[in-house]
Amino acid sequence: METNRVEAFSDGVLAIAITIMVLELKTPSAPDVHGVLEVLPTLLTYVLSFVYVGIYWTNHHHLMHLSDKVDGGALWANLNLLFWLSLVPFTTRWMDESNLSSLPVLVYGINLLLAAIAYTLLQTRLIRIQGADSRLARAIRSDAKGKWSLAIYVVGCAGAFVSVWISAAAYVGVAAMWIIPDRRIERAVSGQSETEG
Amino acid sequence: METNRVEAFSDGVLAIAITIMVLELKTPSAPDVHGVLEVLPTLLTYVLSFVYVGIYWTNHHHLMHLSDKVDGGALWANLNLLFWLSLVPFTTRWMDESNLSSLPVLVYGINLLLAAIAYTLLQTRLIRIQGADSRLARAIRSDAKGKWSLAIYVVGCAGAFVSVWISAAAYVGVAAMWIIPDRRIERAVSGQSETEG
Amino acid sequence: METNRVEAFSDGVLAIAITIMVLELKTPSAPDVHGVLEVLPTLLTYVLSFVYVGIYWTNHHHLMHLSDKVDGGALWANLNLLFWLSLVPFTTRWMDESNLSSLPVLVYGINLLLAAIAYTLLQTRLIRIQGADSRLARAIRSDAKGKWSLAIYVVGCAGAFVSVWISAAAYVGVAAMWIIPDRRIERAVSGQSETEG
Amino acid sequence: METNRVEAFSDGVLAIAITIMVLELKTPSAPDVHGVLEVLPTLLTYVLSFVYVGIYWTNHHHLMHLSDKVDGGALWANLNLLFWLSLVPFTTRWMDESNLSSLPVLVYGINLLLAAIAYTLLQTRLIRIQGADSRLARAIRSDAKGKWSLAIYVVGCAGAFVSVWISAAAYVGVAAMWIIPDRRIERAVSGQSETEG
Repeated sequence: METNRVEAFSDGVLAIAITIMVLELKTPSAPDVHGVLEVLPTLLTYVLSFVYVGIYWTNHHHLMHLSDKVDGGALWANLNLLFWLSLVPFTTRWMDESNLSSLPVLVYGINLLLAAIAYTLLQTRLIRIQGADSRLARAIRSDAKGKWSLAIYVVGCAGAFVSVWISAAAYVGVAAMWIIPDRRIERAVSGQSETEG
Repeated sequence: METNRVEAFSDGVLAIAITIMVLELKTPSAPDVHGVLEVLPTLLTYVLSFVYVGIYWTNHHHLMHLSDKVDGGALWANLNLLFWLSLVPFTTRWMDESNLSSLPVLVYGINLLLAAIAYTLLQTRLIRIQGADSRLARAIRSDAKGKWSLAIYVVGCAGAFVSVWISAAAYVGVAAMWIIPDRRIERAVSGQSETEG
Repeated sequence: METNRVEAFSDGVLAIAITIMVLELKTPSAPDVHGVLEVLPTLLTYVLSFVYVGIYWTNHHHLMHLSDKVDGGALWANLNLLFWLSLVPFTTRWMDESNLSSLPVLVYGINLLLAAIAYTLLQTRLIRIQGADSRLARAIRSDAKGKWSLAIYVVGCAGAFVSVWISAAAYVGVAAMWIIPDRRIERAVSGQSETEG
Repeated sequence: METNRVEAFSDGVLAIAITIMVLELKTPSAPDVHGVLEVLPTLLTYVLSFVYVGIYWTNHHHLMHLSDKVDGGALWANLNLLFWLSLVPFTTRWMDESNLSSLPVLVYGINLLLAAIAYTLLQTRLIRIQGADSRLARAIRSDAKGKWSLAIYVVGCAGAFVSVWISAAAYVGVAAMWIIPDRRIERAVSGQSETEG
């Protein structure tokens, strides 16, 4: 099986997840600066969730680009990832509606953590399919960044009951870490292009 | 006519159906464990519906992969399938809002049953177009799993007035049966790849 | 310019228009047969709108299949069509909420009429681009079916103030006429395949 | 990296942004002419936002068509553009709900301005990747139209506190200016086709 239709379906789900969040945004109760300040936290969580889905799309793009084939297991590993990402608009909404209470902030972190684990599982499966000597396997290697992310999410989740700002710092920190696209893969991709070119 | 644009449109509809369900999810009324328990049944039906649309996407993927051409009748058989799948978010919502009352649980089962019949019709049409000797025809053969699914759905629907747990068992059971991708088709696909490779 | 990205974008808009209508569906107020009867008219208008968007998708598919190139004008003619089709969920909703009052039924008909005119404009533009001797031009010829549709829509709109059932008959009638895929184009397409094959 | 998956994802986000706005449209409170007049301003802002997203899609289409490759930076420049465009349904809604108050009209203008800046950044990045001698670089050249748009947006934003009609004139004016597809790029595209053909 080739990867193109998996990409098309994933693009669809991620494009929808990233766009429908705007339907959840409440407009300010009054058309003045006070109203804007009121919705500002909501807007910031929207930005964070947008960035997260954007990061996943970018990395998914890279991951699939280096994969030549998928199997049934990889399809389900991919659907598992899409499931957790499709929940992001929901957990974002709850966090907003509760004005950043501990439990919803924790649940948002668990959502991010489970998405990250799902991504790792998909990556592992794809590496196994392509083979240990494949470009993908060589591009990922130890995946230190992925492991660090998992650790920081756990800290962020645990911190939610001390202060939600610990969680916020953790979630924003991981996003910042990934916003820089994965150089390893990008290098592999451009290396490939050079070879091909 | 080739299958690629049919795939693109179907991917779009399925991606939207699977993702917009999250807009229907009610957030817990309070940011505590009690609130989470309250929405748990809703979350579980969401998971079930997500898995069903995922199963249809996976099988549709396989079905189209083994089909080389479509005709006008197949386009409408496909739209018929998409119609029933696009109703899944609606019947899921009603089932949730009614706290799993008999009638909505029955209607959800009828929705699943009609989607399964629509899939069977599409499959039959595609086999006829590809020919009795095609890879698709050889991959599907007796379609025992498809027939079992229809029978179990009927049991699940009938059971809704005795106990909705009979229905739940039936709906979850069919999903579990299909979550394992269709080995027959997968074998045919990889057989094809071997031949091609 | 080639047609593939126009197709992709149109597929996206049509897939969303056809799927989000389900978000507008109100669930029955009670989980019993009475509740189901209550929402039945809404469900029937949903089916009608689903079928209409499905017809446009099918015809659009055929139209683009016979077109080899587009220009800026065709892009805007296509966006014009998508605009009217994207309004269908809105006019359907109003018709439902008003329990089929005259004005909303008229507005729904005007929506269908303007979509049909937009389709005709797109078709005319595409024929001009492909040339009078193109496969597309030969496949469409007099377009009697398209002209009949416009006439019946006008009757349906005018009839809304006499009885909304005249309108309903007109709208259902046109849909029934088109549900049978355009044989002319299909013949042209298969003729082409034979030549290519 | 090639441009096709970036196009697919962008098409998805733009198709959703352009279509979900219809979910925000309030139906008239009564099924009569008075009700229609009531929602007319809302419909007009919907048309304006639809046209804007349509313009961006058309220009994005042209931009990508002249680009042969993208890099990580271009992916994020593209996500930045998609972010601002995905907010358009939200700022449109606020403007409508407030009956065109100064601040929401200003915010809508800022949204358009930031989308325009994001587009300029993406264009600049893509030109740098393709090279100063590329078809894209030659097609864009001074980008006077892009610079004029930014200036007019600033005037429209500033004017919101004098009269929202200044803003309306500015926003409609820029849209009118762009509705005519970018001749420079179109010429470059057709020039390319001639060379290729």
